[in-house]
Order: sequence, then structure tokens, then C-alpha cells
Amino acid sequence: MVKTLIPEVVVARLPVYIQRLNQLMREGRESVSSQEMAEYLDVTSAQIRKDLSFFGGFGKQGMGYNVINLLESLRSILNLDRVWEVVLVGVGHLGQALLSYQGFSHKGFEIVMAFDNDPAIIGQTFAGIQVTDVSEMQNHICPRGIPIAILTVPAANAQEMADQLIRCGVKAILNYTPVTLKVPEGVRLANIDPVLSLQTFTFYL
Amino acid sequence: MVKTLIPEVVVARLPVYIQRLNQLMREGRESVSSQEMAEYLDVTSAQIRKDLSFFGGFGKQGMGYNVINLLESLRSILNLDRVWEVVLVGVGHLGQALLSYQGFSHKGFEIVMAFDNDPAIIGQTFAGIQVTDVSEMQNHICPRGIPIAILTVPAANAQEMADQLIRCGVKAILNYTPVTLKVPEGVRLANIDPVLSLQTFTFYL
Repeated sequence: MVKTLIPEVVVARLPVYIQRLNQLMREGRESVSSQEMAEYLDVTSAQIRKDLSFFGGFGKQGMGYNVINLLESLRSILNLDRVWEVVLVGVGHLGQALLSYQGFSHKGFEIVMAFDNDPAIIGQTFAGIQVTDVSEMQNHICPRGIPIAILTVPAANAQEMADQLIRCGVKAILNYTPVTLKVPEGVRLANIDPVLSLQTFTFYL
Repeated sequence: MVKTLIPEVVVARLPVYIQRLNQLMREGRESVSSQEMAEYLDVTSAQIRKDLSFFGGFGKQGMGYNVINLLESLRSILNLDRVWEVVLVGVGHLGQALLSYQGFSHKGFEIVMAFDNDPAIIGQTFAGIQVTDVSEMQNHICPRGIPIAILTVPAANAQEMADQLIRCGVKAILNYTPVTLKVPEGVRLANIDPVLSLQTFTFYL
């Protein structure tokens, strides 16, 4: 599989398929057709079949997909059959909420460190993670080789913190700040500023 | 402008252009070329010019775009020259963080009501919003015609709450839950489950 030949939009849909398959598994379903998958998702059944065809053959004509097999294959394709360490930078209201969120560890992601620059926050523990002074961030992250960071700092600090993280080997940043970050090639960036989604809604309302 | 003829991916990029233009305006810049816009964004300059061409002529060949004019045009295209009322359902850690977030009101969105089912939370005030019992939600939302909802409830309640909101006329849902929601045609849905983004990263790491 040559990863760069697979369109990014296809890769971005795989976690959505996993989410849906997980729900089907919890409902005790053994198989599912692409038509039925498409009902819940914002794609056509043809698109689902085409997306999956990038990664080999799944399911038999007219038989649908085996839920558990497809789930395991997709998890393996996305390298989710291991635990990924994550660092969180910025422990304000949102950072604290994310530290308390149970959904990461269940899905293979573990926040292992958290940093802030506020003396009132440094040293406090949230969901088992003690907050470290951000001025010591490089000493802590660089040697450990943590690949993923969640950025929940104020806008004014966002680019500087991203730069520091990247210098320490972070390869992917989940950006909660309302800032357009500049990152070098090879570093993945996902923006989940809720305002971007809200502003897309209003075009249609 | 026939809205349905404009690809959704194009519409989804406009808020990102607005974000970048806002930064340029704060830096005191008067004009910007599509090349320079593209540097910070994950698109080519040709794509930016093509996206903008859906909405009419902006800028002159070789002159770049006037930052303020383009910003105002894009804000008008996205109906952002007014304040949009938003309701928040689920006032746990994340809901509280979103209520405290200053970024919504600055961008034209105002959370005007919040609901929860926890007796310990109902009646409490966060950032000026008093939490109402979710069992009274329909009485409050239906008459007021609030178009947008933010859903931050536990997974088990997500679909039921979405259904209630839609029955009360909500036309767009920002879904923070890790659930694939089913919504009728005509209702906009954006999923910002951070795990979906993290799972896309790991394909490339």
C-alpha cells in the first residue's frame, strides 16, 4: 500500500466507518451492507465500496461486510492496534475537559503529559495527570518522542507552542485554537475550532 | 447564487479563509495574493482563486485581494453579518468549557440557553447562562426558533437529544459526541469528535 496514493479524504472517512461499525457491533450485528452503512453517513454506498477498495477486498458481492472483520482491518490500516501517547498543551477550561474525557483511552490514545504556564494550574492534577510548567516542555517531550499533541492554548501562544512541539519531534497536532498554524511539510495538522463548523452552517441557514 | 450548486468542500473552506484574513487584518495588512494565502493553508493558490470565483470577482489580476473587502464579502456570503443564537445541550466538563469560551460571541454566535439532566448542574450558572432542566427543553426552544445546537451529552443520550432538537426546529447540530447521528435531510450536521481526527493522523505516523 503506497500511502501517498490514497486520497486524504478517503483516509479521513475511515474513522467514521469505524465509529459506525463499533455501534453496529455493540448492537450485536454480524454483517452490514454498504447501503446500510451509507444510511447513517454522509456518503453513498458506492463511495464506501470505492473507499474500501483502496485497501483490498472486503466482503462478498451480495453478502455485505462482516462487522468484526472489517472493524479489525480498518483499525489495523489506521495503526490503531497499539496505544498512542499524546501530550496536551494548555490546561484551561477546554484542556481540563479533554484531560477528563474518557473517550481517548478507549480508542487507543493516552494523554501522558500536560503543560501550562499559569502558576495556579502548574502542579495541579486532572484525571491523574499532573500539570508541568510549559517552560520545561522540551526537556520532557523531546527525549520521549511523543508523536501527537493537542493544542488548547490561547490564540496568542498557539504558533510558538506549535513550533516548540515540532522541534521536539511531534508529528501531528490537533489544533483547538482559532489560529491558522503554519507547520512544515511532514507534520499533520487538524483544526477543530468549532467556529469553523458553525460558520459553514450559516451559509445554508 | 444557487447554493446547492456550490460544492460543500468549497463552503467549508470559506471560514478558514476568513480566519486567515482576520489574522492578516490584525497584522495591518491591506492586500494579499492568493499565493500568500495558500502558504498558510492546506490548499493551492489556484484552488483559492477557483473557490472564490464561485461567488463573483474578487481582486484584480496581479494586485491581490483587498483584505478588508474580501473579509466583508466572505462574511456576508456566510451570513455572518448578524448574531446567531445557539443552544447547548449537556453541561459536563466540555459543555462548561464551551459556555466559558469567548470565541463564539466574537465570531457572531451566542449561546443563549443550556440544558442538562443532572440535578447538581441544573440551576447553576456558567458564564452568565443558567442551566435549565433538559425535560423542559422543548418548551424553551420550540417557541424561540433557535437554529443551531451544540451537543455535548453522553453518547447514550445523543440520538434522542438530537431528535428532540430537530423536532423543535433546530436546523444545524455541532456534534461533540462520539456517535454517528442520523438526521433528516435539510438538517446540517458537523462532527467534531477529536478521536476522528486523531485516528486519521495515525494512518500517516
